[in-house]
Parts: sequence; structure tokens; C-alpha cells
Amino acid sequence: MRKIAILGIGQTKVDEHWDKSLREIGGEAALTALRDAGVERADALFVGNMLSPILSGQNQLGAFFGDWIGLWKQEAVKIEAACGSGAAAFRAALTAVASGEVESALALGVEKMTDKAGKDVTSALATASDADYELEQGVSFVGINALVMRRYMHEFGWKHEDFAPFSINAHANALHNPYARLHEKINVEKFEKSAMVATPINLLDASPIGDGAAAALIVPAEKVRGKEKIVVAASAAATDSIAVHSRRDPLFLNAAHLSAKRAYDMAGIKPEEIDFFELHDAFSIMAALSLEAAGFAERGQAARLGLENQIGVDGKIPICVRGGLKARGHPVGATGMYQIVEVVQQLRGECGATQIADASIGMAQNIGGSGATVFTHILRRE
Amino acid sequence: MRKIAILGIGQTKVDEHWDKSLREIGGEAALTALRDAGVERADALFVGNMLSPILSGQNQLGAFFGDWIGLWKQEAVKIEAACGSGAAAFRAALTAVASGEVESALALGVEKMTDKAGKDVTSALATASDADYELEQGVSFVGINALVMRRYMHEFGWKHEDFAPFSINAHANALHNPYARLHEKINVEKFEKSAMVATPINLLDASPIGDGAAAALIVPAEKVRGKEKIVVAASAAATDSIAVHSRRDPLFLNAAHLSAKRAYDMAGIKPEEIDFFELHDAFSIMAALSLEAAGFAERGQAARLGLENQIGVDGKIPICVRGGLKARGHPVGATGMYQIVEVVQQLRGECGATQIADASIGMAQNIGGSGATVFTHILRRE
Repeated sequence: MRKIAILGIGQTKVDEHWDKSLREIGGEAALTALRDAGVERADALFVGNMLSPILSGQNQLGAFFGDWIGLWKQEAVKIEAACGSGAAAFRAALTAVASGEVESALALGVEKMTDKAGKDVTSALATASDADYELEQGVSFVGINALVMRRYMHEFGWKHEDFAPFSINAHANALHNPYARLHEKINVEKFEKSAMVATPINLLDASPIGDGAAAALIVPAEKVRGKEKIVVAASAAATDSIAVHSRRDPLFLNAAHLSAKRAYDMAGIKPEEIDFFELHDAFSIMAALSLEAAGFAERGQAARLGLENQIGVDGKIPICVRGGLKARGHPVGATGMYQIVEVVQQLRGECGATQIADASIGMAQNIGGSGATVFTHILRRE
Repeated sequence: MRKIAILGIGQTKVDEHWDKSLREIGGEAALTALRDAGVERADALFVGNMLSPILSGQNQLGAFFGDWIGLWKQEAVKIEAACGSGAAAFRAALTAVASGEVESALALGVEKMTDKAGKDVTSALATASDADYELEQGVSFVGINALVMRRYMHEFGWKHEDFAPFSINAHANALHNPYARLHEKINVEKFEKSAMVATPINLLDASPIGDGAAAALIVPAEKVRGKEKIVVAASAAATDSIAVHSRRDPLFLNAAHLSAKRAYDMAGIKPEEIDFFELHDAFSIMAALSLEAAGFAERGQAARLGLENQIGVDGKIPICVRGGLKARGHPVGATGMYQIVEVVQQLRGECGATQIADASIGMAQNIGGSGATVFTHILRRE
């Protein structure tokens, strides 16, 4: 693939933005990315979004945002892969520039989930599951993940509190991220006493939804002169069945494993060379499964990384360095682009108290459904 | 762009498929395309769909169909651009192969619109409009097109019956297409007496919705040996504001004009060299506006092409040769892929009574919204 650099990034705070529309939050992130890149336009726009047809009655977000941010006339489409929509849009932008069809592209992830009177967000999120095989049984999206977590605990002998470090780490890191949804320190006691959502997943196992948008402007790397570059070392996608029960092993994220493996091969590196990993901790169980799928822990052993303090900024494999889905928040279709933006911030050295010394290679992994559509991106400072 | 060939095509009949699910109709078209290409798998899958999140409660159609048709593990995403989703998926597939990221890709357009108990299809279709600026006024999607048609008739002095040839031609051609929704010959009298939908658009100005799916398997052209090839001579996209009232001129499809112009430039040809044109006749007014935007008629004069018998199989610019949206039917997110499949059928010489002698260059134009997202593809027999 043609070498591509990320020239500009932008994001809004993940929050309940009662005073801002879908248009406004997406526009804010997109225009910030253009301004950060020092350009006024992009040749094409790729929008990642999951829920606007259902919650906002709005389809065709490509033309919708293209018009709003002044990319008049340009190519613009929406890409959807449930909670993996953000990274799907990023990969579509990369592919467009790599093909030579365009010389610059803006990838925007955006989701507006609050102030949707009369719309049921839980039902909307359930469209990430298999409607025929899972929803038909009446199980919610968190319910499916709860079944996976329960089985994992049974199979590998972990207690619920063993997952606490994932959430504690995410909350601790988010304290230093002004764009994060939650700024609240938690501990094991709070984690254990939190309200139950779907046994064994409680409120502090689960990421909070929210309104948010994040964007990045990309160009061919050879066009960036005279300064340090953040380049895309690898981009890879893989899929699995949506229905968890259809998988040979429901406790292994095979698509996450495959896309990570392809990404390592493409970048020519091993997992040990990754300085930090923005993983898809929609639920604490997903943090564990992602670490295992990406090669940072043996099967069933990821909880140990947390218990042994290896996932913090000074650990062996720092994760969720800006708060992750758990504390930065999870505006579903935007999340993948938040991850990209956060990796760029780390590689630029802009993360203050959660800055990793000499971070030069960062990885982001965005997951649609419970492991059905997975995108892995490796970025590098050059 | 790397030269790309279309190796296989597949489609289902556009109809009310009460006995088939979203999964089944999409799977049928996709597997037919693979079989037609003589391959078992593709490296990646790009699905065009507009309404399944709303009507079927199903998102993430990439992984959904990838699993169903046996493309296990492969990259798969959904692309959405309202009624332009089909061609958007085709262009995403082209871009992926052109970038070298994959060596084969399957583009699938699919829509399931009937047997959706309790779901309001008119509201769902309205998500193609601007929710803030148009829907908020209570205008339906056909209502917006009706306003455009009324203004066009006023501005250029045409009567309603002057649009009859567009629908008569489409219905006549569809008689010979077994995959078409409607097999009914019509005449001016029937056209004029048809039930009103939104003045001046009546039932025979409007395309019928339906369930349908169409697919194409593409590969780099250099990999096709020993037989005639259908290659992609051009692929271009452009956008305009979604809200029609925001455009400088609501009677000119600027994005259609721009994407056609880019396509002609890319293919190195002039409109006169196009042997036939599968245009987006969602409403008869859209057929007229498309002909003008693509350079086949002067502003306000496209109706003349119909009245002078220039749009039939033997005319100057044959359109809707397999029935168009009007009579083949308009399963919204699938339509763009039906157009591609139909162009391939003509170039292969498989169209029997509506075969155009020596057809070697065909164009398809797929439109999202009332001209907001437009894709133009030119295919050539080599």
C-alpha cells in the first residue's frame, strides 16, 4: 500500500450534547482536523456512523457532512460496520488515497445518541447483533457479552473482581483527557459494588454511550515535508460470524486475531514492538479477549496483565491510554476514529500525564459487534 | 486507476419476496455472481444497503453476508449513500482492488422492503432527505421530487404527458427482462389516468420499490485471459447538498453532471460515444434531469428525446434498456448494482429482444437522494 500520513486530527468531547445536533458535533471534529492539517478541503470524505438512520432519521451522511463542512461537490459516502464503523471509515479513506483516486481524504466517525426522544437506544444498539439468530431470542447486546463473560470466568477460573484493573486503568487515564466522557477515579470496591446491568456485567464493566465525533485528514506520506510524520504502518480488516454461538470458540476473537496478525505482518513487527494499544473495551471482557487475540496474553490469561500492573502507562503493554471506551466513552460509530486520533496524540507527544516516553509505534483495534468486524491499524512516528 | 474487469454477475428478480429473507435474497445474488465468475471466494465484500437498520433491525451487513455466503474471515463492510448505495459499494470494491489491498472483490447491493410488519417504508425512505431542513417540514421523499417536477414543467413549458415516453419505454423494455418487477405494457392514456401520488407525480411517474439484490465480482483486468473482457473504463463520484432548496439551481443535477464529466474524462470519451445509459429514473422527472446532467440534452429539453423516439433500443441514446428503476423496480440500496449487472448483460450480448447491436460502451448512473450523492460508471467491452 502507498505510504500514507495523518496530517490533522480533531475531536469533540464525548458527552451528552443536548445543545448540539448530529450535524454540529460531526462538523466540529471534521473542521478541527482540517484546521489541524492546515488545509481547507479534502478530495473525499468517508463517514463512519452506525445509528443515525434509526436515531436521527438521517441517511446519506457523506453528502450530509460534505455539504456542511464545505467539501462541496467532492466524493463522500458513509461506511457502517456497527461499533467498528469509525475504523471502517478510516480504512476506506486509506484505500481511496492508496488507489490514487484521491490525493487527500477526511475520515470522520460520528454518533449522536442522546436527546433522541422516543427512540430506544438499546434496541438500536441491538442491530449490531444477528437479528434472525440472536435478537429473535430477546437477548440485548450487553446480554450477549454477559454470556461470553460468564463462560470465560467459568472456563478460566477468574472472579469478577479480577477484571477491575481494566476499568480502573481506563478511568485513571481518562482523568487526563479533556475529551473523555467520565472523569472519575474508581477502585476495586466501587467496581464490585456498581449496579448490575446483565450478570456478570455491571455498570463499571460497561462503557458509557455518548455523543461524539473524531476525524483525521490523510495524505500520501511523500507530500509531507519538513516535519516529523505520523504514518500508517498497517491497516487490516477481518470478519467472523455476527452470531457468537456460530463460532467454533466463543471465547476467542478470531477476526481480531486475524486482523492483528495481518497488521503485524504488514508493518513487519511483532506484538512486543507495539508501545501502546488502544483496544475496544466496550466491556471489560472485551479488553481481555482483545489482548489475547492480539498476542499480548495467552488464552484465558489477559486478566493477569491487569492484576500485575502491566496495562498502565508504565506497564508492558499500556492500553486505553486516553481512557478507552470505558472512560473516554463509546459513541459507537465514532469510537474507531477516537482511537486513531488518540494514537496520533501519543505519537505526537501531546498526552501530558499519560504520555508514554518515546512512544513511536501505536496500535488501534476497533470491533463491530461482539467480534464480527474487526479493523487493526498500526501507526508509526517517523 | 488499475484496470479492473467484471468477471461475474448475479441478480434476483425484483419482487415482493414474502418467502425470502434479507439474508436469502442477498446470498442468492452474491453466490450467483461468484458462480458466474467461476470462483468460490473473493478477497473482500462490499455491501450496498440503505434500509436494513430501520426495516430489518440489522446492521453490519458486511460480516452478515460474508458469513452467510462463506467468505469467512475476509474483509467486509457496508456502504450507504441512500438510493446510491449500490454503486457506492461497487466503487468501494473498485477502489479496494485498485489500491492493491485485495485481488478480488464482490460488490453486493441488497434491499428487503416488503413484509416488514409495523415498519413504515415511506418514513424509512425519507431518511434520504435532510432530516433537519426537509423532513422537519413534513415533506415526503416523493413530495420533494414532485416540487422539482412542478417547477420544471412551469419553467420549461412541458405538460405532464410529455414525460410519458420515459415510463412507456421503461415498461416496454422490462417485458423482456425476467428479473424485472413489472411486466406490463403501458401507453399515454394509462400514464395520464394513473393514480396521483404527489401532484404532478402519479403512480406511472414513480418507480416501484421491492425486494432485490444484485452483485458483481471484480478482479484486476490483467488476470482475465483468453476471453472477451468487460472492463471498468471509468468510476466517478460527486455530491451536492441533500436539501434541494440549498442548491443554486434545483432544476440541474450538478453532482450528476460533475460525476458524468469526470467519468467521460477518465474514459477519454464524449457522451456521443456511449451506446446506452442506465440512468436513475426513480421518477420520470429524474430521467429527464439525468439526461440533461450527463450531456445528452440541453437544459429543460430532455423530454424531447422521449417524444422524438430517441431513448428506445434503436434510438440515439437508449435508456433503461432492462426496464430501469421504473419497471425493473427500485429496491433502493440494490438499484446501483442492478444497473451495473444490466450494463454487463448488454455488453455481453445477453439481452435478446432489447439487445443493442454491437453495444461496446455502456454507462450507469446511480443517485442517492434527489441528486445529493451520484456515482457514474462507464463499462467497456474489450
